[in-house]
This record gives sequence, C-alpha cells and structure tokens, in this order.
Amino acid sequence: MPENICVIGCGFSGAISARILAEAGYQVHIFEKRNHIGGNAYDKIDENGIVIHPYGPHIFHTNNKRVFKFLSKFTTWRFYEHEVLAYVDGKEVPIPINRVTLSEIYGKDFTEKGAKLYFSENAVKITNIRNSEDNVLASVGEDLCDKIFRGYTRKQWGMDLADLDASVAARIPTRTNDDCRYFVDDFQFIPANGYTALFEKILDHRNISINLNTDYFDHRDSNNYMHTIYSGPIDKYFDYQFGKLEYRSLNFKHTYIPNLNYYQKVGTINYPNEYDYTRITEFKHITGQKCTGTSIVKEFPKSHGDPYYPVPRPRNNKVYTEYYDLAKLEQDVTFIGRLAQYKYYNMDQVIASSISKTNILIEQLKKS
Amino acid sequence: MPENICVIGCGFSGAISARILAEAGYQVHIFEKRNHIGGNAYDKIDENGIVIHPYGPHIFHTNNKRVFKFLSKFTTWRFYEHEVLAYVDGKEVPIPINRVTLSEIYGKDFTEKGAKLYFSENAVKITNIRNSEDNVLASVGEDLCDKIFRGYTRKQWGMDLADLDASVAARIPTRTNDDCRYFVDDFQFIPANGYTALFEKILDHRNISINLNTDYFDHRDSNNYMHTIYSGPIDKYFDYQFGKLEYRSLNFKHTYIPNLNYYQKVGTINYPNEYDYTRITEFKHITGQKCTGTSIVKEFPKSHGDPYYPVPRPRNNKVYTEYYDLAKLEQDVTFIGRLAQYKYYNMDQVIASSISKTNILIEQLKKS
Repeated sequence: MPENICVIGCGFSGAISARILAEAGYQVHIFEKRNHIGGNAYDKIDENGIVIHPYGPHIFHTNNKRVFKFLSKFTTWRFYEHEVLAYVDGKEVPIPINRVTLSEIYGKDFTEKGAKLYFSENAVKITNIRNSEDNVLASVGEDLCDKIFRGYTRKQWGMDLADLDASVAARIPTRTNDDCRYFVDDFQFIPANGYTALFEKILDHRNISINLNTDYFDHRDSNNYMHTIYSGPIDKYFDYQFGKLEYRSLNFKHTYIPNLNYYQKVGTINYPNEYDYTRITEFKHITGQKCTGTSIVKEFPKSHGDPYYPVPRPRNNKVYTEYYDLAKLEQDVTFIGRLAQYKYYNMDQVIASSISKTNILIEQLKKS
Repeated sequence: MPENICVIGCGFSGAISARILAEAGYQVHIFEKRNHIGGNAYDKIDENGIVIHPYGPHIFHTNNKRVFKFLSKFTTWRFYEHEVLAYVDGKEVPIPINRVTLSEIYGKDFTEKGAKLYFSENAVKITNIRNSEDNVLASVGEDLCDKIFRGYTRKQWGMDLADLDASVAARIPTRTNDDCRYFVDDFQFIPANGYTALFEKILDHRNISINLNTDYFDHRDSNNYMHTIYSGPIDKYFDYQFGKLEYRSLNFKHTYIPNLNYYQKVGTINYPNEYDYTRITEFKHITGQKCTGTSIVKEFPKSHGDPYYPVPRPRNNKVYTEYYDLAKLEQDVTFIGRLAQYKYYNMDQVIASSISKTNILIEQLKKS
C-alpha cells in the first residue's frame, strides 16, 4: 500500500500525526488498543452527568503558540488557570510555595522580602547535588521539605527523596509573590467541549480511518504499510529484548458526591502526609460545568499497571538508550509520544514533538 | 428606591456595570433605546444563516488579563488573530506595514535590515509635528503615505491628513519583520458563541432587568433611582448646552454571496484609494463559521448618523471638557463608556473602565 500509513495509538501524538499526514494526502489507518480515542486525555460524562477525566486530571497549558494555534483549528477554549493546594498541618496552602504558603504554614505575614529572606536563610547549602532530596533541601530547606515534599515523593514514586535521581525534583519552583496559579504559561485554556470532542475534530478527516479495540501486535506480521507511526511503549515494540522499562502507574478512585456544588476550593489538593492517595482533583473546577453534584478522583500511585510516568533512574535511561539505538535503524517507523520516547512529556510537548516529527517525515517521504 | 440603580445603555460599559452592581446586591434596571442588547458589539445570524456584526467588525483583543478573566466567566473563546490587507496598486499587502508589505509593493525582497533601511531613508525629518500628515511622513515617508494613508484618511474622516490632529495618526506602527497580524496583544480571542451570547450571560442575573426600546430621555423626569449609570452621549445628557460633540458615523452595506466559501483571503481588506468604502470585512474569517455562502460588509464613512468615532479636534476636546466639568457635579450619576467619556475606546478599554468605575462606585455607596 504505497501511500498508506499506519498509526499505532490514538492519543495526542498519534492523532495529531494522523491529521497532519491526512492533510498531506496520505491514507492513514489508526490502530488503538483501547475502546476509545484520546489516550489518557480522553474525557467523558460519567453516569451522574459530570464530565470527568477517567485517567486523571489533564490541564492543558503551553508557552508554545504554534501548538496552541494548531489545536485552535479544532476547538474553542475555556480560560482556566489551575490552582493546587497542599494539605499541611491541617491547612490548605498554595503550591508552588509562595509567600501565602509561608504565611499560612508559619502563621505570620510574609512580605515578598520576608519570603526571599526565608528561602535564603533556610535553603541548605549543598555544593554537590546527588539526588532529589539535595535538590529540595537546597531550594526550600528542611522544614518545607518535610512538610510538603518528603511524604508526597514517597507516595508518588514509592521511593525516598534521597533515592530518587536529582532530575526528578530538578527544579523546585518557589515564588516570593502571591501568584497562586500552578502554571505560569502564556496559554492556559481547557478545550471548551472537552478533550474527546477535540480528538473527534482532529480525527474527522476523510483520509483517516480508526480501528479501536485493535492491538497492533496481533497484526504486526501483516503490516505492509509504507510507513508506521508508533506511539506505544518502545520496549514492547522490540519485544523487551533489553528488559522492561519501568513506569510508575496509578489507580484512580472516582467518587460522585450528590447534592453538593463543590467538594473543595480548587482543582487539585495534594496530600503529602496523610492518606494513601497523593491528591484529589475535582473536575468541575477544570471543566467549568455548572450543576448540582460533583465528581472527584483520588490518585493512588503503584508500581505496576498502565504506564504513566517513566521512572527516571540511571538503569532505565541506559535501557532506553539501547532501544533508542535500535529504533534509529527502523527506517520505516517513526517513534513518537510519551511511551515511544520514554519521556515525561506534558501534553503540549507531545503535540509539539508530534507536529515536528510528522513534518520531517513528510519531507523525507517526498524525497524518497 | 433606595437600593435601585438604573443603567442607561446596554453596550459593554452598561452591561458590565450592571453585572457587577447586581452581584454586589443592587437591583439594576437597564434602559436601552435599541431593540437589542450588546450595543454596537451585537451580532446576529443574518437571513442567510451567516453570523454577522451589523455595526461593523468587532475584533476583541487585549493585554489586560483582568478584563479577559472577567469576560471568561461568561464565554468560551475562539483563538483568532485578525489580519488586514490593504489593496494598493492592484496588490493586497499586509497592514501594519512590514517587510512583506514593502516586498510586495516594491517588487523585491526586503530583509529585516532592508526594511529598517527603507524606513530610515524614507522617513521625512520633521522636527515639529503639527498634524497627522506630519506624523505619517515622519514614520513611513511620502510614497507609503500616498499609497496607504492619504486616501484612507480622506474617506475615513472626510478631511485631509494635514487637517487632522496629530493625535489621530499619532503612532503609525511599522514592522521590519514578517508578522502579518493586525494586533500583537497577548489575548486575541473572539467569544466562541458570539458577542450577543456573551451579553446574554453577563445580563443573566436575577437582580438585573432590561427594558429594550426605551429611551431614557422620555422617562428622565421620573428617575428616582439612588444612582444612575449613564453610557449615552454626554452632550445629549446635558441638553447640548455647550453645543454638539462631533462623531464620525458609518453606513454599512451588508452583502451575502451564495455558493462561495470565502470572498477574500483575510478578515478585512482596506481600500485606501479606490471606491467610496474604506474597507470590506468578511465575517466567516472572524467567527470561524463553516458553511457555503459568505457575508461581507462594506463601510462607508459619513459625518452624520449613529455616533461611532469621536472626532479628535481641538474644538471637540474643548467642548467635552465643559461637559466633563458639569458631569463631575452630578454626584448621583456615573458616566461610562465611549459616548459618555467621548473617547475612542477599544472594547477592552471600555470594559476595564467600566469595571473600575463600577467598583469605585460600590465603595462609595457603601460609605454613604
């Protein structure tokens, strides 16, 4: 099939690649293991009429105007600046840490100057950053490390801060002002009709066909497409020949609360110290849905299950490099997205990468 | 009626003031002369199913995040960066003038450096800027002044460039890059469901009642509200006692073209030199509506009719100041908006001003 391309996986990377290829005139066949489009960004209306993100909260934010412009062809937007609080010592305090966080934790008013002073006085002087604990201590000091980071990390990664690569907590953002937004990106918007509707528009092209409930690996031998876009796990593609890449996974516990307008003050509340879950997200804050009754999700990290977060440990980086070297030899396959690139991409990064890799591919196909 | 406030005019300034007052607990009664809400920003579906702006194109853009956030409570957004071309010597060239404009007009490639050189070589050295002509000449020189500004100004204002206050063409933006957007604001979005839907949401509050087709001046004597928000013409409010303030007005010629997807390449094309109209705007570019058939509007400036643009001449500034001094004495009246402040406000400026003036008023009312 000379002008036919197959795309494995229908999350952001696959769907966007498919769209760009379709617009360039290629016939695109998407194979998706799950029974729905959208990958983990998929959203739906739950049985109580509330829009939820079954795979955990997806908050779009970007500084990349090219990405925003691309998506804007397929969706309108709801302006939404995500806010996160951490439950610490019985109080809900802003994350990232800012002067409001300090004021609430220490029960006295911090000015900008005072906050600056706090950080400079409490940050531990560490010349040789060996791990994430060093990073956190060097940023915010012992007390905030204990209150906000230590417990959360243990839950999130199943490891102590000190055992985690320095890169994981490489940059602990702190603010001395009272900006309580979680992100500071130029574009902070949620697709007005949700992610699934956005994917439907992206995929609505006569050159695109989608096969749901279809595992590529069941049909791999009969692959006679001119090119394959692969967005699945890279280790699986190569039959785990160098061993499995580790992922941190999540259990989601979704709960509907009737007769309640809002369950919590903001989109997400982190629980660094209490409970087994890391955080609770309430969807109505994100979607802007107006109704009585609300749905929340608790996230319970675990070491096995659907792959969510690549685990940045030297062993994994080494194994990935081995797969990556193999992947480079596969001239008729393009590896894209979080799983195939084993990279903890944000949505906008996945999209940017998919756009650019697909455009490069189209140039190459034209030449060959 | 102790807690009752009346709002005259239901454009942006009046509607937003009404909303803020309603949320603060006041009973708000809006009186609007026209048979619809939204003032000149009103949009509607024409008889051919195309969304149009009956009073000319309204392109929302702002750097004011407070304004954007305020409106975002009532609307989702379509990302839209307006583009304007000018029809010059048979070519359609970008406005504001950039290096693409120069390249197309002069039929040779201008680099950024070349464009910079062009402007510095051609700009007329004028030490004493007396009028708009001086301003234009000092920015872009004789040739571009003739090709792009002279004719347009004559049509738009019914005056020669040389007779127009320096302030009118006070800042002729030129670019040496190839950014072809008309605006460079941080937020460039159109209300996803249009302006009228936005106004409906703003006005949807149990403390707000609206009387359309009601001329405030017919009922003025029976005004016993605790406070009045007035967004009509300030000279009319004071019975024209210092004379009429001049406005430039417009005739709109709306045309529907069936069986055509798009009439022109971009939202607006200016005609500085040919025809009696200044520009043609095609609404589908702005609204993003997908359908066959398209609607355009031609704008014919005129000196009488509905007030659009305050005419910035010394005489008008002087007369306005006299009215303004009277207005300050009206303690129970707040004057807001383009007509009551006799200022060529953009939409976001009207909104910012309305928010801040209304909040100040609420503080004052609390104290008294």
